[in-house]
Amino acid sequence: MYTADEHQAWVHCILLSPVQVANNLMDMDQDPCKRLCFADGRRKVDYVLVYHYRKRSSVRGSPSQHRLSVISNGSYPLGVEGKDPEGGKDEPAEVVVDVGPPIPADGEKIMIREEFEGNLKDAGLEIERDKENKAHGHAFIRLHAPWQVLSREAEFLKIKVPTKKVRHSRLLHDEWARYGAFYKYQPVDLIRKYFGEKIGLYFAWLGVYTQLLIPASVVGIIVFFYGWATVETNIPSQEMCDEDQNFTMCPLCDRACDYWHLSTACGTARASHLFDNPATVFFAIFMSLWAVMFLEYWKRRQISLNYSWDLTGMEEEEVRSHTNTVTLRYSILTSPERGVEESGELGKDKWRQRLLSAMAAGNPTGHEKLTWRDRLPGYLINISSILFMFGVTCSAVFSVIIYRITISALMAMSPDPEVKSNVRVTVTATAVIINLVVILILDEIYGMVAAWLTELEIPKTETDFEERLILKAFLLKFMNAYAPIFYVAFFKGRYAIPGEYVYVFNDYRMEECAPGGCLIELCIQLSIIMLGKQLIQNNIFEIGIPKLKKLCRTLKDKERAPKEIVEQPGRRQQWHLDYDLEPFDGLTPEYMEMIIQFGFVSLFVASFPLAPLFALLNNVIEIRLDAKKFVTELRRPEAIRAKDIGIWYNILSGLGKFSVIINAFVISFTSDFIPRLVYQYMFSETGTMHGFINHTLSYFNVSNFKPGTVPSISSLGKDITFCRYKDYREPPWSSEPYQFSKQYWSILAARLGFVILFQNLVITMSMLVAWVIPDMPKNISEQLKKEKTLLVDVFLNEEKEKLQLIQSLFSRDLTQEQQEELNVSDQTSLPLHQTQPGPHPPTSSPAPRTRPRAASFSQFTRQMSMSPRSDITQHTAV
Amino acid sequence: MYTADEHQAWVHCILLSPVQVANNLMDMDQDPCKRLCFADGRRKVDYVLVYHYRKRSSVRGSPSQHRLSVISNGSYPLGVEGKDPEGGKDEPAEVVVDVGPPIPADGEKIMIREEFEGNLKDAGLEIERDKENKAHGHAFIRLHAPWQVLSREAEFLKIKVPTKKVRHSRLLHDEWARYGAFYKYQPVDLIRKYFGEKIGLYFAWLGVYTQLLIPASVVGIIVFFYGWATVETNIPSQEMCDEDQNFTMCPLCDRACDYWHLSTACGTARASHLFDNPATVFFAIFMSLWAVMFLEYWKRRQISLNYSWDLTGMEEEEVRSHTNTVTLRYSILTSPERGVEESGELGKDKWRQRLLSAMAAGNPTGHEKLTWRDRLPGYLINISSILFMFGVTCSAVFSVIIYRITISALMAMSPDPEVKSNVRVTVTATAVIINLVVILILDEIYGMVAAWLTELEIPKTETDFEERLILKAFLLKFMNAYAPIFYVAFFKGRYAIPGEYVYVFNDYRMEECAPGGCLIELCIQLSIIMLGKQLIQNNIFEIGIPKLKKLCRTLKDKERAPKEIVEQPGRRQQWHLDYDLEPFDGLTPEYMEMIIQFGFVSLFVASFPLAPLFALLNNVIEIRLDAKKFVTELRRPEAIRAKDIGIWYNILSGLGKFSVIINAFVISFTSDFIPRLVYQYMFSETGTMHGFINHTLSYFNVSNFKPGTVPSISSLGKDITFCRYKDYREPPWSSEPYQFSKQYWSILAARLGFVILFQNLVITMSMLVAWVIPDMPKNISEQLKKEKTLLVDVFLNEEKEKLQLIQSLFSRDLTQEQQEELNVSDQTSLPLHQTQPGPHPPTSSPAPRTRPRAASFSQFTRQMSMSPRSDITQHTAV
Repeated sequence: MYTADEHQAWVHCILLSPVQVANNLMDMDQDPCKRLCFADGRRKVDYVLVYHYRKRSSVRGSPSQHRLSVISNGSYPLGVEGKDPEGGKDEPAEVVVDVGPPIPADGEKIMIREEFEGNLKDAGLEIERDKENKAHGHAFIRLHAPWQVLSREAEFLKIKVPTKKVRHSRLLHDEWARYGAFYKYQPVDLIRKYFGEKIGLYFAWLGVYTQLLIPASVVGIIVFFYGWATVETNIPSQEMCDEDQNFTMCPLCDRACDYWHLSTACGTARASHLFDNPATVFFAIFMSLWAVMFLEYWKRRQISLNYSWDLTGMEEEEVRSHTNTVTLRYSILTSPERGVEESGELGKDKWRQRLLSAMAAGNPTGHEKLTWRDRLPGYLINISSILFMFGVTCSAVFSVIIYRITISALMAMSPDPEVKSNVRVTVTATAVIINLVVILILDEIYGMVAAWLTELEIPKTETDFEERLILKAFLLKFMNAYAPIFYVAFFKGRYAIPGEYVYVFNDYRMEECAPGGCLIELCIQLSIIMLGKQLIQNNIFEIGIPKLKKLCRTLKDKERAPKEIVEQPGRRQQWHLDYDLEPFDGLTPEYMEMIIQFGFVSLFVASFPLAPLFALLNNVIEIRLDAKKFVTELRRPEAIRAKDIGIWYNILSGLGKFSVIINAFVISFTSDFIPRLVYQYMFSETGTMHGFINHTLSYFNVSNFKPGTVPSISSLGKDITFCRYKDYREPPWSSEPYQFSKQYWSILAARLGFVILFQNLVITMSMLVAWVIPDMPKNISEQLKKEKTLLVDVFLNEEKEKLQLIQSLFSRDLTQEQQEELNVSDQTSLPLHQTQPGPHPPTSSPAPRTRPRAASFSQFTRQMSMSPRSDITQHTAV
Repeated sequence: MYTADEHQAWVHCILLSPVQVANNLMDMDQDPCKRLCFADGRRKVDYVLVYHYRKRSSVRGSPSQHRLSVISNGSYPLGVEGKDPEGGKDEPAEVVVDVGPPIPADGEKIMIREEFEGNLKDAGLEIERDKENKAHGHAFIRLHAPWQVLSREAEFLKIKVPTKKVRHSRLLHDEWARYGAFYKYQPVDLIRKYFGEKIGLYFAWLGVYTQLLIPASVVGIIVFFYGWATVETNIPSQEMCDEDQNFTMCPLCDRACDYWHLSTACGTARASHLFDNPATVFFAIFMSLWAVMFLEYWKRRQISLNYSWDLTGMEEEEVRSHTNTVTLRYSILTSPERGVEESGELGKDKWRQRLLSAMAAGNPTGHEKLTWRDRLPGYLINISSILFMFGVTCSAVFSVIIYRITISALMAMSPDPEVKSNVRVTVTATAVIINLVVILILDEIYGMVAAWLTELEIPKTETDFEERLILKAFLLKFMNAYAPIFYVAFFKGRYAIPGEYVYVFNDYRMEECAPGGCLIELCIQLSIIMLGKQLIQNNIFEIGIPKLKKLCRTLKDKERAPKEIVEQPGRRQQWHLDYDLEPFDGLTPEYMEMIIQFGFVSLFVASFPLAPLFALLNNVIEIRLDAKKFVTELRRPEAIRAKDIGIWYNILSGLGKFSVIINAFVISFTSDFIPRLVYQYMFSETGTMHGFINHTLSYFNVSNFKPGTVPSISSLGKDITFCRYKDYREPPWSSEPYQFSKQYWSILAARLGFVILFQNLVITMSMLVAWVIPDMPKNISEQLKKEKTLLVDVFLNEEKEKLQLIQSLFSRDLTQEQQEELNVSDQTSLPLHQTQPGPHPPTSSPAPRTRPRAASFSQFTRQMSMSPRSDITQHTAV
């Protein structure tokens, strides 16, 4: 939209956020000077620009401080702080902008600043600045957008004016940003009015998600209690705990570990049943459908919000062109150069030069397009970096595995029996905590890497930039959070066959799962990572670090210019206070946190039915925490108009689809559900589960152990010829010893069959659910229809009246023989019949001045009724 | 949209199809009377209404003849027939409407007709009728839509007027509706101009589909030739043909059939390799992606067409409200009642009465809503009928199976060796032909059943009706066409294990597949049904039956009123000729045919790589055949505005998804691809395919045959102890004779694993393809952006000029102290600066007459710049 002149583009982008326009249109009839105003006490302050200036002699500051970026939050909403000297209350339209071009020298800076201000004036804005009596510090420039500018922009953005006034209660902080209100619905309309559609949509989405977590949590708890209730009657866990059966198991590590009795693993077997019972399968299907329902429900809510927030007329394309290329380009220029040097290609330098020259030529008229060849190195770096990060994640997971193996081996060798008995608990707990810390650290690093990589791609628009960044960050963080979980779910203990053990570094045998199965380990892993991540990120990253940063900044500022502030304590305006707040850095981290959580809730829900409950508890706190942060601790964000949650929806829907296949695999491969079914209906002689444990254990002849791997000290080892291990293999006495048995293949086939069945069943059901639930709520579509009918009726009536009027005019005019003044008279008389309320039809004639005056009646009528709506004439052949 | 007055709704629906409006807007400057005109020679004939009338004494005709329905085709396009007496050439706007209310007596009819015509006049249309000198026959009423009516409707429909004139060549018949033009692109724009968007979209879609069939056919042919080239080197087929190996196979039927040597099936084995080779797997993946590409490409094409046909501004909601409830209700009233009686429920009569009373109350104001309870019986009948039809289809398939079994058994018992040797060929061929005939007959029946069932549901709108009808008809016809194919692909021969044969009617053993595998039978079945269906439906249903119908009607008409026509041969106007043509009954059959074909091309493509080629050949003919039919043999269809192909897109996309899983199953279960792979990498001792055939055959001890099933006369039977059959079972000498062997389970696991792999791989790739291809072509989105920029620029300039003008006016007015005439002077002067070309901004003030005259400057400016666009004021709180 704002292409030709990029300087002009700045002005538009910064000044006119649609919410403000709409708000101002509504607020016009109120006394303007209850708010912050210009010195004349009449014109309202709509935006505040701020820049640093210093004496010629002062050193050039760090460029990163001077980026052109919109930093925000004008004022506090009512009731937050009382020290406002001018009584500026709930300002709907004030944003602080940091305008400092990064590279040019001071003289250039002033010129650019002047040009910028000139453009602001050209666009019709009015400017007030401080009397510049300070030699050094911040300068604040206040802007006022007059009525005609607002309404012109409103026209471009196709904002509808509500004909009915909606009463808004002015109560945001008390209604929303406190923990006591956790049981209430969020005042989404108020949030949108104050923060704009984009942030409004985020909180609406968070609300819908949290609300829908309630049924999921309830069903999850029921499934958990079903397991708890049936654990006593469950034959496999009974058999495991039965000391009479006395299965002698093969040792869990070389030499140091002894043979052991299966009944010692009774506890984990019982715990495992809490999560791994037939109800889990039902729950996995339920949660897959739940994810679909959630998305469908959100679509409807979004349409409702679009309707009540007057976004139905907003065009998709509008959003995409909300460009701020300049910011982007500067940020590329100032971005660290190490990344480019990293790839070390030959053509790299040429590419970089081209890139830079293209950017340097980024003056308003020069549009040197980046070709495919220019972009290729950027993409290559991208791909290789992402692969590298994948490698880093995998090695992190692998290091933790090594840690576990070595520590277990060392502890098992310890002579202290106390140490020995606690091996598993200690190792598992410490390893998971290490995992968690690694995840949290890598999470921050990956966020930065994603931003850097996206800058290398030079996307064209802000939206494009954001989408690519989100996608990359999501990929990296998702992998980071889930890699250890995937390992436990699908790889751990799959290669632990006696005689065929896999060794790492020639010395350490790969670990096996706990005796109760891998599912219980998956459960522990999931719950610790999920809870830990949420608690730590909530407490440290969202509350602690911002507070720390603020403290640092305040200290720094005081150090730098202590005099001015002390000198003029009474002159601190609202914008000085606001400038001290933390800048707002986008919704991405908030969404990301929730999406990763959504992954925990949907992806591995088959192994951990309590995940929705934990998510729900977290979110109830999270909403109020975010609210408090937005209202009291951040500068007011620029209000951005948005129709939907953008790429997050696609990510959610992708996660939903991915969760189906993951759950299918967890149920069929990680849990014992399928082996149990197959045993009961295919192998069991009694048709019951009795003998299942014996069936799952294969025999191993201890004389087949490789030399040096036999337990060195053994209390049981003397009279043992066979030990047992969990797998389906031929016994040592068969014709094909230790080969996969027929049971193995039949169970594998059943497992795979279940995956196919589950996946296709759930996909079909999801499609059905999505198809049955209409995207648009019925009342909204009816409302839209009604509005249309009303419009058509009014239009038709006016049409009729107009025709009659013209006919009567014509007959009069012809008798008066005053054809010369035809045009004048009919146009002036048009407003006569426009006294009725309702939409106003287009009335004036678009006829050019050159048309013949003595028009025939038919020709005249034709021109009269041909309406001048810009839509009709929009289809220009460019 | 047209809700309040339904009579008025008739008028709108019948008269003003948007294409006409657009065409007329463009044609205004041409001499109107080159076309069909009113008697005054100036007003153009836009629509023709027709009704039957007869003497009071004449018998009441069949009600079905009198339905209110739009029957169509005004005139021939240029060059079709020369006997046009008035030179009416390429009329863009003439449709014949048959207005005869179905039930009321003649007096009522006349009243309704008069009310209808009154409404037409109220809507601004002009009417011309024949001098009614005939006592009996058709009456034609010509309508003319004046300019202001057209432009008012254009405004409602948000039609944009092109600012650049597009030159259209007037050559439709020669360009399109002849076979000689098969290699050319279709003139889609011309088609749309003449037939409206809906039909234009159909032909555009057909064109895209046919065009994309070309690469699919080429790859299919390559795959076929790959099979042909490798058949000599293919070890399994070599081994089958090798007479030295001499596998003695178990007999194919009880008693009558003898043991046989596998080498006799050499021919089918070689033929089977043509279709079942490793390239097929690649081809199946290719075709799944092809289907996705096709849909994506079509989406783009659709958006391009929307842009060039000015549909971008059209609102979705508009389409849905294009209601013609009255037609529907009447058709329900006159629909045969047998259906309702069929269900035989108790509450049925009550329901029916309610339904009828609701319909009887279908006067303009009465809106008795049908509740859930009213609709329930309808839905129940629906579901039960559809299930019943499923049953019918299945029994049809089953009957054909019985036919095959009995005939084979009978022929095998025949003493004539000539008959015996031809058993398989004869039986297969006749059975497939019977199948085909059954399919064709059921197809017609199912079409009618679907229509009847949809009427029972009483959908609210025409679109809704169409969608439901299509969905049902598709379900039934799809099942009908594919049931026998599914049987061959997945069920045939799966239960033919010696000693465990499945019998039907206690006597007939279920058939096995041909010795070469089921795939070759699937191939034959597919090709015959596909080719036969296409050829027969094209020739008989699309050409033969319409011609026959026309002949019948002509004969009937001649018989009834031979005098009038003979008497007035010179007075036959264009509309008389058009009335003789076949009425147009929707695009549904055309689409349906193509979608079923798309199913053949995508669903079983793994078993028949030549399907795309056959489809391509058919479509090249089909396009021209349809074109000829539309141009010369049907009344001109009512032009309907449509943005997309509606539910057909969903069906296509659903078929595409379904095809992935079907192809996965065909490859892994019907073809020998997986067993071969598993053999080569798991069981083969040499790592080659040698010994594969032996591996696939199990042993059966002939002494285990049940009494009476041993071959009665056998040339080989004496020295045989074991015969072989195709399955993986334990041999008779094992500990578990005839149980599934380990090979069976491992191959089953591999097959299922392949299904999972294939399905998820293809789904992922499809999503990637759909994501990579943007929905909107780049040039279109750039064009839209450019138009927007242009509009904004013009708007901004005008804004500036206007402000300046107002300022100057104000200063003048204030000095002149003529504030009383303020409104008049500024409004008359507004057109002054509108001489530049381009879109016209809204200029008049919407200020009501009551506002104070002595306005302040700021207030005045505000009102001036607040634009009167109806969009802005549309958001009324109803």
